[in-house]
Amino acid sequence: MRPSGRNLDQLRDIALEPDVSRYAEGSCLAKFGNTHVLCTASVEDGVPSFLRNTGKGWVTAEYGMLPRSTHSRMDRKRTASGGRTQEISRLIGRSLRAITDMKLLGERQIRIDCDVIQADGGTRTAAITGGYVALALALKHMQKLGAVEKSPLTGSVAAISCGLYNGNAVLDLDYDEDSTAQADANFVLTGTGGIVEIQGTAEGEPFAETEFLSLLQLAKKGCASLTEAQKNVIEAAG
Amino acid sequence: MRPSGRNLDQLRDIALEPDVSRYAEGSCLAKFGNTHVLCTASVEDGVPSFLRNTGKGWVTAEYGMLPRSTHSRMDRKRTASGGRTQEISRLIGRSLRAITDMKLLGERQIRIDCDVIQADGGTRTAAITGGYVALALALKHMQKLGAVEKSPLTGSVAAISCGLYNGNAVLDLDYDEDSTAQADANFVLTGTGGIVEIQGTAEGEPFAETEFLSLLQLAKKGCASLTEAQKNVIEAAG
Amino acid sequence: MRPSGRNLDQLRDIALEPDVSRYAEGSCLAKFGNTHVLCTASVEDGVPSFLRNTGKGWVTAEYGMLPRSTHSRMDRKRTASGGRTQEISRLIGRSLRAITDMKLLGERQIRIDCDVIQADGGTRTAAITGGYVALALALKHMQKLGAVEKSPLTGSVAAISCGLYNGNAVLDLDYDEDSTAQADANFVLTGTGGIVEIQGTAEGEPFAETEFLSLLQLAKKGCASLTEAQKNVIEAAG
Amino acid sequence: MRPSGRNLDQLRDIALEPDVSRYAEGSCLAKFGNTHVLCTASVEDGVPSFLRNTGKGWVTAEYGMLPRSTHSRMDRKRTASGGRTQEISRLIGRSLRAITDMKLLGERQIRIDCDVIQADGGTRTAAITGGYVALALALKHMQKLGAVEKSPLTGSVAAISCGLYNGNAVLDLDYDEDSTAQADANFVLTGTGGIVEIQGTAEGEPFAETEFLSLLQLAKKGCASLTEAQKNVIEAAG
Amino acid sequence: MRPSGRNLDQLRDIALEPDVSRYAEGSCLAKFGNTHVLCTASVEDGVPSFLRNTGKGWVTAEYGMLPRSTHSRMDRKRTASGGRTQEISRLIGRSLRAITDMKLLGERQIRIDCDVIQADGGTRTAAITGGYVALALALKHMQKLGAVEKSPLTGSVAAISCGLYNGNAVLDLDYDEDSTAQADANFVLTGTGGIVEIQGTAEGEPFAETEFLSLLQLAKKGCASLTEAQKNVIEAAG
Amino acid sequence: MRPSGRNLDQLRDIALEPDVSRYAEGSCLAKFGNTHVLCTASVEDGVPSFLRNTGKGWVTAEYGMLPRSTHSRMDRKRTASGGRTQEISRLIGRSLRAITDMKLLGERQIRIDCDVIQADGGTRTAAITGGYVALALALKHMQKLGAVEKSPLTGSVAAISCGLYNGNAVLDLDYDEDSTAQADANFVLTGTGGIVEIQGTAEGEPFAETEFLSLLQLAKKGCASLTEAQKNVIEAAG
Repeated sequence: MRPSGRNLDQLRDIALEPDVSRYAEGSCLAKFGNTHVLCTASVEDGVPSFLRNTGKGWVTAEYGMLPRSTHSRMDRKRTASGGRTQEISRLIGRSLRAITDMKLLGERQIRIDCDVIQADGGTRTAAITGGYVALALALKHMQKLGAVEKSPLTGSVAAISCGLYNGNAVLDLDYDEDSTAQADANFVLTGTGGIVEIQGTAEGEPFAETEFLSLLQLAKKGCASLTEAQKNVIEAAG
Repeated sequence: MRPSGRNLDQLRDIALEPDVSRYAEGSCLAKFGNTHVLCTASVEDGVPSFLRNTGKGWVTAEYGMLPRSTHSRMDRKRTASGGRTQEISRLIGRSLRAITDMKLLGERQIRIDCDVIQADGGTRTAAITGGYVALALALKHMQKLGAVEKSPLTGSVAAISCGLYNGNAVLDLDYDEDSTAQADANFVLTGTGGIVEIQGTAEGEPFAETEFLSLLQLAKKGCASLTEAQKNVIEAAG
Repeated sequence: MRPSGRNLDQLRDIALEPDVSRYAEGSCLAKFGNTHVLCTASVEDGVPSFLRNTGKGWVTAEYGMLPRSTHSRMDRKRTASGGRTQEISRLIGRSLRAITDMKLLGERQIRIDCDVIQADGGTRTAAITGGYVALALALKHMQKLGAVEKSPLTGSVAAISCGLYNGNAVLDLDYDEDSTAQADANFVLTGTGGIVEIQGTAEGEPFAETEFLSLLQLAKKGCASLTEAQKNVIEAAG
Repeated sequence: MRPSGRNLDQLRDIALEPDVSRYAEGSCLAKFGNTHVLCTASVEDGVPSFLRNTGKGWVTAEYGMLPRSTHSRMDRKRTASGGRTQEISRLIGRSLRAITDMKLLGERQIRIDCDVIQADGGTRTAAITGGYVALALALKHMQKLGAVEKSPLTGSVAAISCGLYNGNAVLDLDYDEDSTAQADANFVLTGTGGIVEIQGTAEGEPFAETEFLSLLQLAKKGCASLTEAQKNVIEAAG
Repeated sequence: MRPSGRNLDQLRDIALEPDVSRYAEGSCLAKFGNTHVLCTASVEDGVPSFLRNTGKGWVTAEYGMLPRSTHSRMDRKRTASGGRTQEISRLIGRSLRAITDMKLLGERQIRIDCDVIQADGGTRTAAITGGYVALALALKHMQKLGAVEKSPLTGSVAAISCGLYNGNAVLDLDYDEDSTAQADANFVLTGTGGIVEIQGTAEGEPFAETEFLSLLQLAKKGCASLTEAQKNVIEAAG
Repeated sequence: MRPSGRNLDQLRDIALEPDVSRYAEGSCLAKFGNTHVLCTASVEDGVPSFLRNTGKGWVTAEYGMLPRSTHSRMDRKRTASGGRTQEISRLIGRSLRAITDMKLLGERQIRIDCDVIQADGGTRTAAITGGYVALALALKHMQKLGAVEKSPLTGSVAAISCGLYNGNAVLDLDYDEDSTAQADANFVLTGTGGIVEIQGTAEGEPFAETEFLSLLQLAKKGCASLTEAQKNVIEAAG
């Protein structure tokens, strides 16, 4: 039924490869099937000016795509700026800030760079899921060094897309599904099922409340699996 | 309980003033309390290159703020570009395209400009609600001129924000509420209650599914009132 | 004789609506017939770097147009930058600085934003005339608060355009006249008739000194009326 | 009385050196004392889109400054853009178009580049005066080649600044005078004394009509000398 | 002697991994030790305007760095533009054009994107060496499809850096060596030893002709090894 | 044999005119035949942030072209930025830093502006050669003022291009030669023959080591003449 042969509630093969960067304080190559996103966490002293002398830190994110990460090559300028790019960067940042205690972080900034090496749908959800791993590994590293006493993480966060495809609610859309779905929603959920962000869009016809609720149920299932994978890789790494 | 003294499910005073621009094919000054957004619809021959020779039209939107529409003056450059501005422009465009039959429109582009004259929270929802009126008036104007035979509108669309404020679900947040809400969600619904867009964000703590559903119920109520107001003004105008 | 039926020395209907912005320290919606310009004055602590530690303040202006303020829609980028926009911004700033005592203002900056809501010729003269009202109201507000002891205004300033239209010198050109005038001149005069700025341009044939002098006489008459209107609104407001 | 020892109505040493560029169709190095502006005229086939298929040509200008043309070095970016630069570019273009018959020019564009090699006040007037020579030489060259039958020039144009300095009306301000003048006006006049552009600005106090008229009389005298110099060099060159 | 313990004339571990991108017509991940550059070749119909209707094709390149490819994070904007980035992009393009017959390629453009995933010195030489593999694989692919009859390659090209480090001429500098070398030179050589580009720079003291010649000898040795590696991977792949 | 009739090893007529700018601390108009580059040295207090509090100074350069310095007019934006412009700016800066003792200079920055008035090939070599003269004159000026005790120059630097033209190695290519040369190399050498920079590029076929060496021999000869000319003008000037 699905182009990939997956079940309606089946994720793609998920791999979260930790410590792939020689230099970043934390890093993770997140693979959701053929979607590959390289996430790095860079710890910097100091914070943006609006936070100076507050004792609080900041987590921010930037999303980019390699020009030939997509079926046809994108202009390099479009990959680095533009509305969609900024929108996703802001979403990743908000999602990660939602589970970080800024007082415990102290006046430091952690920059999460999420660069899409290969895109096959769901790049923003892979970026959030992998970005969380990079962030957690960087904080683990800081704890080891004694730079922070206690982990500033108040929970974990993962993200998945769901959509209405051929009349069915399906989990984790790939590009083929995404480009023809009637509706497409991205869910960012904490490890305990709390809602951080919901973004749902009707691509053609408006959709009904019941349909939306079935997408939410799928998302909870998918994020639970991703949370499990995150936990495993973070415990093993570092 | 609410700073404005409104009931939890009470909209601000809503006014949709039609035909406020001497030149635009359709226009509406949308007032949600002290939030004032000037919406104009400009009809242009021709379409973006990806639609040429398809017989289909396009509806797009641009959102901007006057520098002193806000409590403290914004830099003029920030009002015209930047992530937030582009994100809202894209949202308005998608919302209006969702209720437009592009075949009936033909190879024309309608540009909706939404400029915030004064901002007191909820500017994007006022922009969508007023943008729909401007669009409908421009299409009515085109029908009169015989430029389109049948209205390309397949329905109407309105938008409202809801949020969790002091532990309560409240409708149509003003700036005071918006800046301290635990959660903030924008709903774009059709006149028949179909969902076009949902964007929910936890500002502090993640929120629960039940809380989210109570926001959705408030939004349906609010959008029903806005739909009524839109219908009245469009019928009377032109 | 004139498209509008006005006498050669007749201004359009002038309205200077004060305090139209909820947030700005001073504001005025200046209407010269169908030309509507929203002027706001924003008071900021601090001055540009070249004035730091001089005890002197600064007044600056920015001019913009809404994309559909004009007969056919302008590209939003063109409305915010470009040579004409900057030229007018600089003219407004110079005109207002000419009647402000910067020592009395102290190390503060007042930014005048002039945004054209609707354009039918003469937007820069409406902007200067309304910008003065916004500035005066902001300074009155500052005096009330005790932020300045004495008004930094050394006089008032107003502006009007004149031109050669169908061989006649006419006052306050509207768009129809402006687009076919042989010559077009903008005069910025103080309330006591002093010259602050003169900008005259031959659109087609060069013009003669005597013609220029007849434009100047008309301008004095027009600015006297504008000065009267400014005085009335400033005294009544605040 | 004047820092340079000049009489009140005395120009600086004027030199208009023709054909200084090996490549440009017309060129002139205009020296007004220590102000040196290199003016080149480049003839191009084709016109801007708004003139296509009208049979009419176009003359446009661009003004720039070398970074160390001034007392203290300017940032290179500021020399190429910015409000002042664009304002002057537009002024030069309008001045030269005022004496060009666009029908006789045909669908060609002539670009006048005016680059300030050294600045000692009055760069825009040297640019217009020298730009006219470059334009005239390029048109003479085109006539020789038979590209135009008849000269498209309908007259000549020159420009000079005047100002109120130490209470006196003086001609052709240098930097020392310009920076302390009470008023500063630029006049663009045709060879027969017609007014093309007048731009007068009070730098401190507003000035009176009689003062303005005395500046105009000086300007007529100065432009007459410049016209003579232009005529001589154009006849001799080419 | 060398920080890495390598012999003076020893390359780092070289790996050229072909076909790493699911979408690009040709691709190669070039690893020179810890320097990793992802190279993709994208084939496009059409050529830049200066080549239209000449029957000739074009090869061009763009170089970029991921923000955290380096020891300390670079600003994303600096990674995408700036003088160094453009200089390297131009060098890669020239190098690859030197071994491509543009007539045989026909009116097509091949864009080589070289994105640095991890940087430890020598990124431009890895980019050229890997870029050649990506180009060759794309052309092999085109031949298979019958899009070109004969390979447009007239040879192969590889690049290596050499430098004076602690008084010795050394091959293939890593970051530690590069940052303290007295001289640094990049050589782009064909598979048959022809010189395509030489760029030598004294970092501190100027260097002597004999020193320069010893760098050239090392480079020939290094490029011969790289040529061998390229040949093997191209034959095996596709 | 050469279009200009010069011998293979013959420079064009070289003129280095000192002190051509009224304002710059040092200046030189470098003429290599019809290539004319105006070089100015501007001394500024302070250094870029990476050198603050190190006691060291900095020398940097910016290269630009006047729009009609070339056969056909260049767009003004292209003359001020773009890859080629930045590449040459960086080259000039590196070349001049190579012979400057930054400790002796102290925490000052000297900016060398090299603006091409007329281009006939070899603009970057004229810029380096003339830029050195401007730098030396500025330093001489500073010594006179007592701003530096001892000259920070550790030597002199000059540059020349060589190329393979019609199968021969020729010195100092003009535009006609440059545009058809098989190879083109720029050499930056010190007054004592040390190598500062070498940049060689095959324009068509790769070239051989022996060919490259014959270019280097020509360059040494050419730079020796330029060094002599520099010495003469610097001694005479100031």
